[in-house]
Amino acid sequence: MSGVLETVQKDSLIEKGRKAKAAAAIMAQMTTAQKDEALRLISAQLLKEQEFILGENEKDVQAGRGAGMSESLIDRLKLDESRLAEIASALRQVAELKDPVGEVLEQWERPNGLQMEKIRVPLGVVGMIYEARPNVTVDASSLCLKTGNAVVLRGSSTAIHSNKALVSVIHHALEKSALPIDAVQLIEDTSRETAAQMFKLNNYLDVLIPRGGAKLIQTVVSNATVPVLETGAGNCHVYIDDTADVDMALKIALNAKTQRPSVCNSCETVLVHQAWADQHLGQLIDALQQQGVEIHGDKAAQQWDGVATATETDWATEYLGLEVAVKVVDTTGEAIDHINTYGTKHSEAIISETDDSIVEFFNKVDAAAVYHNASTRFTDGFEFGFGAEIGISTQKLHARGPMGLPALTSTKYLIRGNGQIK
Amino acid sequence: MSGVLETVQKDSLIEKGRKAKAAAAIMAQMTTAQKDEALRLISAQLLKEQEFILGENEKDVQAGRGAGMSESLIDRLKLDESRLAEIASALRQVAELKDPVGEVLEQWERPNGLQMEKIRVPLGVVGMIYEARPNVTVDASSLCLKTGNAVVLRGSSTAIHSNKALVSVIHHALEKSALPIDAVQLIEDTSRETAAQMFKLNNYLDVLIPRGGAKLIQTVVSNATVPVLETGAGNCHVYIDDTADVDMALKIALNAKTQRPSVCNSCETVLVHQAWADQHLGQLIDALQQQGVEIHGDKAAQQWDGVATATETDWATEYLGLEVAVKVVDTTGEAIDHINTYGTKHSEAIISETDDSIVEFFNKVDAAAVYHNASTRFTDGFEFGFGAEIGISTQKLHARGPMGLPALTSTKYLIRGNGQIK
Repeated sequence: MSGVLETVQKDSLIEKGRKAKAAAAIMAQMTTAQKDEALRLISAQLLKEQEFILGENEKDVQAGRGAGMSESLIDRLKLDESRLAEIASALRQVAELKDPVGEVLEQWERPNGLQMEKIRVPLGVVGMIYEARPNVTVDASSLCLKTGNAVVLRGSSTAIHSNKALVSVIHHALEKSALPIDAVQLIEDTSRETAAQMFKLNNYLDVLIPRGGAKLIQTVVSNATVPVLETGAGNCHVYIDDTADVDMALKIALNAKTQRPSVCNSCETVLVHQAWADQHLGQLIDALQQQGVEIHGDKAAQQWDGVATATETDWATEYLGLEVAVKVVDTTGEAIDHINTYGTKHSEAIISETDDSIVEFFNKVDAAAVYHNASTRFTDGFEFGFGAEIGISTQKLHARGPMGLPALTSTKYLIRGNGQIK
Repeated sequence: MSGVLETVQKDSLIEKGRKAKAAAAIMAQMTTAQKDEALRLISAQLLKEQEFILGENEKDVQAGRGAGMSESLIDRLKLDESRLAEIASALRQVAELKDPVGEVLEQWERPNGLQMEKIRVPLGVVGMIYEARPNVTVDASSLCLKTGNAVVLRGSSTAIHSNKALVSVIHHALEKSALPIDAVQLIEDTSRETAAQMFKLNNYLDVLIPRGGAKLIQTVVSNATVPVLETGAGNCHVYIDDTADVDMALKIALNAKTQRPSVCNSCETVLVHQAWADQHLGQLIDALQQQGVEIHGDKAAQQWDGVATATETDWATEYLGLEVAVKVVDTTGEAIDHINTYGTKHSEAIISETDDSIVEFFNKVDAAAVYHNASTRFTDGFEFGFGAEIGISTQKLHARGPMGLPALTSTKYLIRGNGQIK
């Protein structure tokens, strides 16, 4: 790459950062009504320009097929009328949600008379880095606009026509609204160099949110100097205690593994208490195998036909497919140790009728969401009742678990005095 | 450095991380009573081993003097009976504070019957990186222990004797308590290599908190892959509006600048509305100069004797001493733009009797703490009534402004079901 070209690209990214930052200052002043109106305008514009969007999306799909992209990736990339209608509908739903900005979180008075108030404010500029799912372009924009933020989008090169089309449609809608067009910026240069630069754009970005596979997230975490909201990786467990109800345990283990194996809150290892295993491990293995699940088991599980040998690697693997690891443990404590050693602190479930075991599991398992007698598949902003989700945080700072609108806000102290000095 | 030595050091740091992580799991289970008892034991042990601590501290002070350390740094490094008594007293005060761990933040039920609960939990392992202030060794330990965390301390090489002594005394006290000794780890190897390694110790540290000068903080932010809680830098402003009460404005500007110029919440630039300046700028400059403050002024301020020319650099400088920049502005909006351009989003004050100006300032200034008719010097965990402070966050994620005990916690969702699947 020539030095001149590099300079042009850098300026272009910085220019987008600068515009987003200026737009963020305006966005912070927008009323809830103005923001909601803009979301409805975007929703309508998406439907109005449907033909254009689907045409541009088709270019990406064709290019993907030409490059040998897998059908599951093509499926994530592809838009059609019904998917676009869903995206447009989601925008109207976000418009209905409560606006967290301006909410008074705390109020108190100090002995010296200072009136203290803590309120929610927008984060500022949110950087989104994601893979070939064009719906994220609209989802992320809508959640950021609703919370008074500006957003800088960096999607995959394989979705670039779709993303350019969607952002141009968003801009057409914003032109009719009170919101600044610059509040939604798309980085059209999808080179690695520009992504690397985005990771360190501390002057313009307040947070980076990577959405995608483990590799993408690891790259962002390892290289970013902008604060990162880490999302995604889920090596989740279902632990079946000795007193677990048999039908319930089978039903939950199957659901957690097979209902949608490609997502982060699906189950990757089933841990089974020795006493339950003695009676019912065969049933569990049968049920999983009948659903086409390939099983990697410890010594005890290997006594059943078709169970492969689980290695250390299996305990740490997020299969994201119809595979599962199975291990028999002697106590709830052993299950907890296994989870805290190999888990990714995402979602963990105990199936049990023993209060002591449940309490121990709730207290000692270190994860964003800990379940008793329910499937791990509920870890999701919609299932939690947040009405929206920007991702599922697997870190402990700022937000943990499903992130709804408040995760896109910060706080500010407003302090009213009458001449106080220290 | 030989390869072998390097390996030994690396193992040692990882070993400390591993021990801290194991201790964190135990710490999360400790009751408030057990934690408070440990803090009181540490307080007593510090006084009991006072002679040993002061002797070791004297070694650092002598070495510092020998190396030509400035007297202000020596003053920060030096411990004496009265300072040690203050440190011991602070420990007992932390023991009296409310324990945030276990607090139920939200509770709700989903239509499918899932019982949702969001509670506060410890962060896990906190990494502290700080300069030659041995009191931070004890303060940080006490706040981390109170919140059920383990802590890995990395102080300055120039305070290494003091820090080793203090941590050994903490360990003596912990031996008598229910808490694990390993909950407080000191990195004795203060090389840059080990610090660089600590920045990337993601497997063992949940957060890094740098405390010290801008350079230290910048180094951590630029190099860490562990999430960082950024603290410290404060380029704070006092804006005197046209309707500001003259006495109040003078009193607050002087207080914010001179009461303790070396701290982050002191004022670095005074912005003055043209109309107020016409009548009172001379008084303000006189008052500041009488307190020995060197003034860097814009054209308007330069009309007074002894006012140096302010450059672009002055607007961005955190003097941390008896220097101030002064600028005359035409409107509140111009003051806000100046603050949002040059400020560090820490503490900003408006002195005014005009409601519209105050509302505009509160709405548009992007900072952790915004004041009306009060000094910026109140931005502090104690002045806010938190009873403790781990630092003042200048970032927008997780915690903003003075960080009390809750900033050292994360959350966890506990979900109770009766067989729910998706």
